[in-house]
Amino acid sequence: MVINSPSNKTTFNYKKAMNKKKIINDPVYGFISIPYEIIYDILEHPYFQRLRRIKQLGLTHFVYPGALHTRFHHALGAMHLMQKAIRNLQYKGIDISPEEAEAATIAILLHDIGHGPFSHALEHTIVNVHHEDLSVLFMEQLNEEFNGALSLAIKVFKNEYPKKFLHQLVSSQLDMDRMDYLNRDSFFTGVSEGVIGYDRIIKMLHVHNDEIVVEYKGIYSIEKFLIARRIMYWQVYLHKTVLSAEQMLIRFFERIKFLSIANTPLELPSSLHFFVKNKVSVTDFRANRKRYLDQFALIDDIDIAYTIKNSIKHPDFILAYLAQCLTHRRLFKTEIQNTEFKSDLLQDIRLKLEKCITLKNDIDVSWLIIKGSESNIAYSTKKDEIKILMKDRQIKKLLEASDHIIDSDILVKHFLCYPKI
Amino acid sequence: MVINSPSNKTTFNYKKAMNKKKIINDPVYGFISIPYEIIYDILEHPYFQRLRRIKQLGLTHFVYPGALHTRFHHALGAMHLMQKAIRNLQYKGIDISPEEAEAATIAILLHDIGHGPFSHALEHTIVNVHHEDLSVLFMEQLNEEFNGALSLAIKVFKNEYPKKFLHQLVSSQLDMDRMDYLNRDSFFTGVSEGVIGYDRIIKMLHVHNDEIVVEYKGIYSIEKFLIARRIMYWQVYLHKTVLSAEQMLIRFFERIKFLSIANTPLELPSSLHFFVKNKVSVTDFRANRKRYLDQFALIDDIDIAYTIKNSIKHPDFILAYLAQCLTHRRLFKTEIQNTEFKSDLLQDIRLKLEKCITLKNDIDVSWLIIKGSESNIAYSTKKDEIKILMKDRQIKKLLEASDHIIDSDILVKHFLCYPKI
Amino acid sequence: MVINSPSNKTTFNYKKAMNKKKIINDPVYGFISIPYEIIYDILEHPYFQRLRRIKQLGLTHFVYPGALHTRFHHALGAMHLMQKAIRNLQYKGIDISPEEAEAATIAILLHDIGHGPFSHALEHTIVNVHHEDLSVLFMEQLNEEFNGALSLAIKVFKNEYPKKFLHQLVSSQLDMDRMDYLNRDSFFTGVSEGVIGYDRIIKMLHVHNDEIVVEYKGIYSIEKFLIARRIMYWQVYLHKTVLSAEQMLIRFFERIKFLSIANTPLELPSSLHFFVKNKVSVTDFRANRKRYLDQFALIDDIDIAYTIKNSIKHPDFILAYLAQCLTHRRLFKTEIQNTEFKSDLLQDIRLKLEKCITLKNDIDVSWLIIKGSESNIAYSTKKDEIKILMKDRQIKKLLEASDHIIDSDILVKHFLCYPKI
Amino acid sequence: MVINSPSNKTTFNYKKAMNKKKIINDPVYGFISIPYEIIYDILEHPYFQRLRRIKQLGLTHFVYPGALHTRFHHALGAMHLMQKAIRNLQYKGIDISPEEAEAATIAILLHDIGHGPFSHALEHTIVNVHHEDLSVLFMEQLNEEFNGALSLAIKVFKNEYPKKFLHQLVSSQLDMDRMDYLNRDSFFTGVSEGVIGYDRIIKMLHVHNDEIVVEYKGIYSIEKFLIARRIMYWQVYLHKTVLSAEQMLIRFFERIKFLSIANTPLELPSSLHFFVKNKVSVTDFRANRKRYLDQFALIDDIDIAYTIKNSIKHPDFILAYLAQCLTHRRLFKTEIQNTEFKSDLLQDIRLKLEKCITLKNDIDVSWLIIKGSESNIAYSTKKDEIKILMKDRQIKKLLEASDHIIDSDILVKHFLCYPKI
Repeated sequence: MVINSPSNKTTFNYKKAMNKKKIINDPVYGFISIPYEIIYDILEHPYFQRLRRIKQLGLTHFVYPGALHTRFHHALGAMHLMQKAIRNLQYKGIDISPEEAEAATIAILLHDIGHGPFSHALEHTIVNVHHEDLSVLFMEQLNEEFNGALSLAIKVFKNEYPKKFLHQLVSSQLDMDRMDYLNRDSFFTGVSEGVIGYDRIIKMLHVHNDEIVVEYKGIYSIEKFLIARRIMYWQVYLHKTVLSAEQMLIRFFERIKFLSIANTPLELPSSLHFFVKNKVSVTDFRANRKRYLDQFALIDDIDIAYTIKNSIKHPDFILAYLAQCLTHRRLFKTEIQNTEFKSDLLQDIRLKLEKCITLKNDIDVSWLIIKGSESNIAYSTKKDEIKILMKDRQIKKLLEASDHIIDSDILVKHFLCYPKI
Repeated sequence: MVINSPSNKTTFNYKKAMNKKKIINDPVYGFISIPYEIIYDILEHPYFQRLRRIKQLGLTHFVYPGALHTRFHHALGAMHLMQKAIRNLQYKGIDISPEEAEAATIAILLHDIGHGPFSHALEHTIVNVHHEDLSVLFMEQLNEEFNGALSLAIKVFKNEYPKKFLHQLVSSQLDMDRMDYLNRDSFFTGVSEGVIGYDRIIKMLHVHNDEIVVEYKGIYSIEKFLIARRIMYWQVYLHKTVLSAEQMLIRFFERIKFLSIANTPLELPSSLHFFVKNKVSVTDFRANRKRYLDQFALIDDIDIAYTIKNSIKHPDFILAYLAQCLTHRRLFKTEIQNTEFKSDLLQDIRLKLEKCITLKNDIDVSWLIIKGSESNIAYSTKKDEIKILMKDRQIKKLLEASDHIIDSDILVKHFLCYPKI
Repeated sequence: MVINSPSNKTTFNYKKAMNKKKIINDPVYGFISIPYEIIYDILEHPYFQRLRRIKQLGLTHFVYPGALHTRFHHALGAMHLMQKAIRNLQYKGIDISPEEAEAATIAILLHDIGHGPFSHALEHTIVNVHHEDLSVLFMEQLNEEFNGALSLAIKVFKNEYPKKFLHQLVSSQLDMDRMDYLNRDSFFTGVSEGVIGYDRIIKMLHVHNDEIVVEYKGIYSIEKFLIARRIMYWQVYLHKTVLSAEQMLIRFFERIKFLSIANTPLELPSSLHFFVKNKVSVTDFRANRKRYLDQFALIDDIDIAYTIKNSIKHPDFILAYLAQCLTHRRLFKTEIQNTEFKSDLLQDIRLKLEKCITLKNDIDVSWLIIKGSESNIAYSTKKDEIKILMKDRQIKKLLEASDHIIDSDILVKHFLCYPKI
Repeated sequence: MVINSPSNKTTFNYKKAMNKKKIINDPVYGFISIPYEIIYDILEHPYFQRLRRIKQLGLTHFVYPGALHTRFHHALGAMHLMQKAIRNLQYKGIDISPEEAEAATIAILLHDIGHGPFSHALEHTIVNVHHEDLSVLFMEQLNEEFNGALSLAIKVFKNEYPKKFLHQLVSSQLDMDRMDYLNRDSFFTGVSEGVIGYDRIIKMLHVHNDEIVVEYKGIYSIEKFLIARRIMYWQVYLHKTVLSAEQMLIRFFERIKFLSIANTPLELPSSLHFFVKNKVSVTDFRANRKRYLDQFALIDDIDIAYTIKNSIKHPDFILAYLAQCLTHRRLFKTEIQNTEFKSDLLQDIRLKLEKCITLKNDIDVSWLIIKGSESNIAYSTKKDEIKILMKDRQIKKLLEASDHIIDSDILVKHFLCYPKI
């Protein structure tokens, strides 16, 4: 064994004889067991270890200081729920072979591997490729490295496998991804409103015509789950202070790009430098998969955080100001309303800001005024509706089966962020 | 207001009219209220905000992936418990004035402000000053900025105030610091063995001759608390994989220092660069308090993490190897035993390692073999013993009052870490 | 002191010198402190101790085996939340005097003292007086025994005190009663769907024009609270198996009354015997308050359970059959639907039942077929609507303030219970 | 089907076609699944349903008002943990056949079926047969009714099966019984000191030479488990107020027996009457198994509670006094010390009591003075020691393997209870 390359493939060899049946402590579920040896090997891969350095909820910890959990932990949690879901369906007599179980497990474990740091904010600022595309690319690369052992998992992930319910457990309005993130996010934020009866929901799942259905007596749990999700959106994910921080982060990196194009000197981590300088598309990734993925895999929360801290004294006022605010948590004031903001108001704010910054007349304060909107649908009736298995074995759509009103409207909120003046 | 200095004192002004009675979500206790306006102002200070970027448990998340909570959160939690303790003592008729209550609250909030990043590992590697000394220096600096509002808190912290029990709530074998960290660390690691009956212990506290005592009926809770603490030491804080990671981190920064002295080029964050290049003593801090504290306050987990990631491809083999291992979690094998390791064994390992690294003959593999010891005392009888208020109003020391054996021996374990070969 | 009368007033004397500042373990909130000496004295009174023998959720434990908690525990829990609510309002600057705080605390503690055993089922079967009337009567009796110390509490309870918000904390759509019972019932049943953010809701309460209002940022918690309550209704309180058991219990006591009128010999506990034999109205209670209350206070779950067990071998088939079924948990089949059951179906069931009971031709099987309906309103807009304090200090009704649909329709479900045949 | 006999065997028939794969809500573990059809049938049997009416912790709810959970719930919980333990051992490669798994599951489910009401207090007062003997008798009777389906379970329970570890999971110092009762009792009392890492302990179990061993890395969890158990003994099970209540209950029934022998008229429930009048031995049970078991199965908490309430006005002063005290929770004062109480003190108390009861000179007050002792061993080294699987695959006894002191001494406490005078 050559010792100086911990990240190349040969390092996997010495583990062959190891006990890979590990358990991992998880405050949410107690313990998570690693169900298959290949799962252990995937966990050890640098592509996956990287998720340890990417927080699930970006800057949410500015409001909820416990929300520091990572995509690594979420992926493990979703895998854990997948085990429960599969075991439950098998207990009910649904045919799921060991290979299918393993494939669904791998698919859920890797469903988010394409996420970059702060992807809710930065997905289209730094790297302009959708994270689901990157997830597929990562899986394909890993499949090559693991000699085809992920082929079935990829089929399940891409919904190309006949037993559609396996895909639905990975990705649908009732998937193990949502189940875990609602649980986990409400656990670490301490927002008890997001607590869901995941255990009960999983016990209520069944399969009909190769599709996931929910037994009728689980319908209240589903209703509650949808409400919990809606609440988590407005109380956590789109919380106005979180929104403010994320918008400031986006602005910060837009400014980085702006300065980069203007050839202003910037000290960027080399990983970021590559993507700031080059406009990389999904086609580029497909053409040079390993090279671009390796490059992409180098970026994580540390690079973003370091870039911000390192810009505090940058000569560019806008960049330095945003960096200082983000570092010391001096977040912009945020207004939220159901209608668009009027231009008079924007003009007003601009004038006030300009007065504050008397000494630096050349600054374009519009960089510090951020306008936009966020929307959320609690339950979509457009695609992949939740189906209920009635007591007479009929299948009904959730909206028909429920005695209560299910909120399926899109809700749009407009926001405006600017310095507290 | 001048907008470009979010960190200077004037920024506090605009908050004067604000509502500072905030509540903060905490998954451990539900909600934490900010009890005084000055607490809000301290929280907002960059010195304190910096604790958001310092994990309480360093690299422990390599074993317990939930253990990402920060010193910021711990300080808030300890403050919350202090509120409970004070309210309980007042309810029992102990005289604590509003000023004393505020002082004790500030003292516990700031008790750990002198910690740098990964201080368990790095306290004497990067900055050679004890964190308690730094805590006092920070408090004194803040006291100046807040026009003397922290004077009483500093007295309490330094145990210079007649009501000794206030200091004991901040620092003793039953202080609110331990109470919160055991709670919080067991919560976020998911190690239920560390759960303590903090609520009950706090309710059992009383004061006798200006000292904290525990009512007799709380003695089982104290016994359990000591056991829980002992278990957390061996199962979490000194877990052998955590130990391995921390020792590797120490080695990594020793190598940085070694290379720096040898004038090998290193790309360090400027904050770190200052302390790697200059040997700074507590006397220096005292002489130039603000300047050195500002410098020190710039260092946090981000700088350490960035330095590691940034060294992966460094030409120095030892540095790059340690950086790679720490980044991709290829941790050294760790052996632990009750006696010292024999030199034959060390020689054996050295030879094996040298064989592995055939291509690079000039490498001193002893950098990759780490030997040391850790010790822990579950309960110290040396100083500040826990006192029990018996039913006949007598005071007894815990060891005399208890029917059970209280483990007060020092336990030493020797460890040896080296690459898995 | 005369020792043979533990229940008369003199027994209170020896406690005067006692420490009445007790804490009580509560798995839901950790610890409950007794805030006033008079509370301790009320707790000790046999009228209150009796609530230890009355389960909060009647026969619900047939479905949720943990649901054995008592009205005693619930009353303590509601009192605990009242302390939190009062402390929070005082912290926000609302003027609540120590006397008012004590009065509100007593009022919530005693709000349910008028409940008899299994009152959801038996309120109008055994004693035909509404429990709220009985609560007032108990309070008035205690007020006499405690020399007028409950006068203000009674005013608050009856909503005769100017600060209406105190009454609202005791009884309204957001009172501490609901807050505790949702918490407690979801805790002991294990139905996580009922978990509410009580802590957050309480922190969001404010007072405007002497009425309780909720700060706007608490609106999601309110929405969630209403949903949780609705879910608890259908999943727990009106669960079809619970319904079945309760309907059987009602039938059992209707049969007792029927047999009593027919002078069939019955072995009843003397406490029950009194109310089965005499038709007692609220006017009777008012006329002979102490005598009737003492009589009423003798009845608890034990009498009901004993009467059932003791009837297993009663010669009356219907009575014995119901007693056996209730004892051995052979509960009737229950059908539930949104429309009324057709008479054909009833006729069908009657015929089938008659065939089963071939040996006993004289039995009126209609006693074993139970038809009825249950209804629930998640949120009533008829009276005492929840009010929201908007950010611009305006007050809006919940329905206007919310972006979401609040379900305020009455939902009626029809049920039919009969033996499994 | 004949409808009037819900308790005879024919009633089981109509369930054959039913879905017996039920899940039961449990606040401790979330959900408990019924793993085998026969388990469902046993649960339905009146012998087992009767455990719904027997509280696990007797009168403990006088101190911990949440402690109302039943032996029914505990049996389900222990069964749930058995499932986890078996699944874990199978995952580690231990050979456990489906039949063996079912047998161990039945054995743990029925391990406590021989308990009567308040058996900690009443086991040798009302029925003079040890509950373990009764458990075996119940199992044998059920085995007959279920056509031999319990034969293997009985072998496991009686430790007559070669795979000794199955018996150890049912009964040993680390069995699923203890695991569940510590969990459950600490959950419902709210005594967090009793929380154990059951999940971790179960994951650490292994089998060596057909015996249960614990992997070395689980040793801290075992140490903590022993401490938690010790604490639960002194803080809950032998809490001095609980002790007081139980001693009063014993005295109450001793008085019942005394009066019965003296032919004083007593109104007893018929079930109790049988055992109060007849001295029944285990030989009698064996000779007339079904008859005596049926008789015994009629007694539960309701009969005891009813007898107490019904004696409040009994002409016998001692009986009525104890009944009143137990009903209204006027519990005796209890003193506890490590040495025996001196006879002077007893004489003193007797004189004081006699003075109090001036009007009734003929009363033997010694009935109201209760002297005795309780003992507990945290960990027994006498038999069935816990064995640790060291890293080198050696087996060591816990005391040798641990670095800490394991308390294995017997601790005896003497108590004295008498009316508060």
